[in-house]
Amino acid sequence: MHSVSEWYNDIVEKAGLAEHSPVRGCMTIKPYGWALWENIQRPLDEAFKRTGHQNAYFPLFIPLSFLAKEAQHVEGFAQECAVVTHYRIKTDPETRSVTPDPEATLEEPLVIRPTSETIIWNTFRDWIKSYRDLPLLINQWANVVRWEKRPRLFLRTAEFLWQEGHTAHATAEEALQEALNMLNLYESFVQEYLAIPVIKGRKTPNERFAGAVETFTIETLLIDGKALQAGTSHFLGQNFARAFDVKFLNAQNQLEYVWATSWGVSTRLIGAVILSHGDEKGLILPPKVAPIQVVIIPIWRNDEERSATVSKAHVLASQLREKNLRVKVDDDPQHRPGWKFNEWELRGVPLRFAIGPKDLLAGTVEVAWRHSGEKLVVSFSEAVAQAESWLNQIQTALFERAKDRIQQQTYRVDSYAEMREILEEKGGFILAHWDGTTETELAIKEETGATIRCIPLDAPEEPGKCIYSGRPSQRRVLFARAY
Amino acid sequence: MHSVSEWYNDIVEKAGLAEHSPVRGCMTIKPYGWALWENIQRPLDEAFKRTGHQNAYFPLFIPLSFLAKEAQHVEGFAQECAVVTHYRIKTDPETRSVTPDPEATLEEPLVIRPTSETIIWNTFRDWIKSYRDLPLLINQWANVVRWEKRPRLFLRTAEFLWQEGHTAHATAEEALQEALNMLNLYESFVQEYLAIPVIKGRKTPNERFAGAVETFTIETLLIDGKALQAGTSHFLGQNFARAFDVKFLNAQNQLEYVWATSWGVSTRLIGAVILSHGDEKGLILPPKVAPIQVVIIPIWRNDEERSATVSKAHVLASQLREKNLRVKVDDDPQHRPGWKFNEWELRGVPLRFAIGPKDLLAGTVEVAWRHSGEKLVVSFSEAVAQAESWLNQIQTALFERAKDRIQQQTYRVDSYAEMREILEEKGGFILAHWDGTTETELAIKEETGATIRCIPLDAPEEPGKCIYSGRPSQRRVLFARAY
Repeated sequence: MHSVSEWYNDIVEKAGLAEHSPVRGCMTIKPYGWALWENIQRPLDEAFKRTGHQNAYFPLFIPLSFLAKEAQHVEGFAQECAVVTHYRIKTDPETRSVTPDPEATLEEPLVIRPTSETIIWNTFRDWIKSYRDLPLLINQWANVVRWEKRPRLFLRTAEFLWQEGHTAHATAEEALQEALNMLNLYESFVQEYLAIPVIKGRKTPNERFAGAVETFTIETLLIDGKALQAGTSHFLGQNFARAFDVKFLNAQNQLEYVWATSWGVSTRLIGAVILSHGDEKGLILPPKVAPIQVVIIPIWRNDEERSATVSKAHVLASQLREKNLRVKVDDDPQHRPGWKFNEWELRGVPLRFAIGPKDLLAGTVEVAWRHSGEKLVVSFSEAVAQAESWLNQIQTALFERAKDRIQQQTYRVDSYAEMREILEEKGGFILAHWDGTTETELAIKEETGATIRCIPLDAPEEPGKCIYSGRPSQRRVLFARAY
Repeated sequence: MHSVSEWYNDIVEKAGLAEHSPVRGCMTIKPYGWALWENIQRPLDEAFKRTGHQNAYFPLFIPLSFLAKEAQHVEGFAQECAVVTHYRIKTDPETRSVTPDPEATLEEPLVIRPTSETIIWNTFRDWIKSYRDLPLLINQWANVVRWEKRPRLFLRTAEFLWQEGHTAHATAEEALQEALNMLNLYESFVQEYLAIPVIKGRKTPNERFAGAVETFTIETLLIDGKALQAGTSHFLGQNFARAFDVKFLNAQNQLEYVWATSWGVSTRLIGAVILSHGDEKGLILPPKVAPIQVVIIPIWRNDEERSATVSKAHVLASQLREKNLRVKVDDDPQHRPGWKFNEWELRGVPLRFAIGPKDLLAGTVEVAWRHSGEKLVVSFSEAVAQAESWLNQIQTALFERAKDRIQQQTYRVDSYAEMREILEEKGGFILAHWDGTTETELAIKEETGATIRCIPLDAPEEPGKCIYSGRPSQRRVLFARAY
């Protein structure tokens, strides 16, 4: 793959995941991509509910004045807000051209939510009166809009889909714990379901969410050596409670501002899956989220063989479905087996079972593993008995492979020159000392394009010198060029 | 209930379903309301998939020029479109007030989708080449925006949530059949899950969806005698295919325009549930969609009794959960049993199990039916064994009760004077003769506020005279004042 970027766009479209829409920066998520998103949403939603969160839904629109209430917040999002100014359009009766109706302007323009802290905290003011109303643990599945200068399918789109958790607590400790709990939940989910290893860390002040006291992140490294922020969890302190005057009566009957968190993951995770596991043949989907886990391809040369292999394929499919596997039989007569093999490899289906006339006689199936290219002829009954276990093994193998890759792409670097060289030549995660100042951070970003992805939570104390300024540093931080 | 309208707003807020948001016409769906929506979404989504439909997702934004392509369509939606004109905001450094940035106006304004036919058919042009690509059966779960002059929670909100199906077919017959199939699916769902009887019919030309050749509807009648359109399914002919130039090569290798349908139901269904079954005590939720099907209330006077009844309540709850019932134990020490009884009645929980100290000794539970007010003391084991069957009986009883009510509120009327009197005095469905002209339809609407809800699909041929014009009519149509 000479250009990962071209490969990526090509695969996303050819595999039927998504495509660019005529609206700049927006994408159409196609059925196969949507099925993948549903398989991401379901276990996440269950995990949120299991940990006591409730879903709710807040308006798409945010009055401009709300956004303005938290100074850093509006600063952070002002550059990328879609603004609604009119509530009617009119057609010119002659030219039939359509324009916003100048007689129908909104008194106060509305922003399409780029995130919902402001509208939600405005509502929380009415929901929270006493410590008995806390903690309030809310999640929302929604679309949000952030105008993007350089859109990429899934990775950066003007409109994207996500979940945003918003919680309210009586103490700073409890809110901070919630932010960390959700970070851990994201880590487990992304590692277990998407087979993507992540590094947990805290963002530098410069990279924090606009309005947060502390931003935690899970960061991963993709096959092209670029980093991706896969999810964030914010400790918001009392910033939004102050901006929206949300107080509660504590057990001592005193009024206090409420403590907050917010946290989210988005359709960007699909981009992470593609760029963590894919290869020159196309997608490689982790079995736990693959819309199709096993594709069965009957092979025939004549009608008699066709009827026999197709019916055997359907028997196999129903036996696998009884084990709750997601199975597709591709018995389309318009395409030849070789075409189908390529197609389902491109689409990343973890296991392929092929059944030809000889297999019928021998009672066998040819099994092919998408991620390793291995093939094995096994008995029909073994294929049924083993499928689930094979899928579990693939899930683990993908995670281990990605982990090894990331380990190989991670460099402990002690000089700025070396860092620049690595970034230019191969990319990757760079663990290096930093003096803790925004000034240095911005200078490195300006000169190399690399940002501090995070200060890893498990970074050991290790005195050293900042690679840029030479000033003292207590621990290494994680640099990379990122999406 | 002296005013159904006040009762409705009061119940929606007090039961924790939804509330008005500070953005005019938009609502916040609260956790209990959202849980109800999830219970509506899940079986509907499964039914769509079972019938071969696939979910996908299209952009929130529609370029103005797209909307303009289908003349009737733009006509129908122009009055209620939210228009995005800017992609950035700016803060005045002195006043800190925020305004749309005049330097960041969109070249072409974007409308927030009021419905997605245009953006979807623009995409279908690329997805459909030959008859082999048909039928294309797509559904989308999304938020849409239609500016409303008189918003009502759930029933009419500027932003609402819905699903919109969009399908493409090779022949008119097949598309028409799809539109009818989806109408039937809606009928089954609404009757079986929401216990709401509906009348299937076709809309008059004047009441058709903007751009449709034929609009089918399911109509119901609410407790206040007003009608509600609960879902619609449209046969769009080739209108959108022509507007967006979507052609396919048929089996004879000729290019033809594609035939289309679209169909949708929305969060409005929650309004229908409330206004079909509720009473002066509050909500009455059909068991199949109730977020909580059984609430268990332990009753105690001292700590010893508290510990015994609460633990018994949890034993009962876990036994019921093993039967896949949705159960809540209300063991909150802050409220007394009487308060809880009222609260869960208000929230419409179908069954209440109360366990007091005497019940512990006797091994009994007091069961109360929300919809009928009945109470019965039964053995603990019977309560567990019967709960599911009781819920099924409640589901049926609610449907039958609503059916009886609607029958009583339905009038066969042969004079315009009688129609006006009924509409003024009690509302209801009015089956009357109509001459088939839009002129008459609009005159009746103007004079009485009643619209033709539909021409029922099962209306028998019955020659008669139009109640308004006296001209001949072939069958009765269904009039009502409607939401």
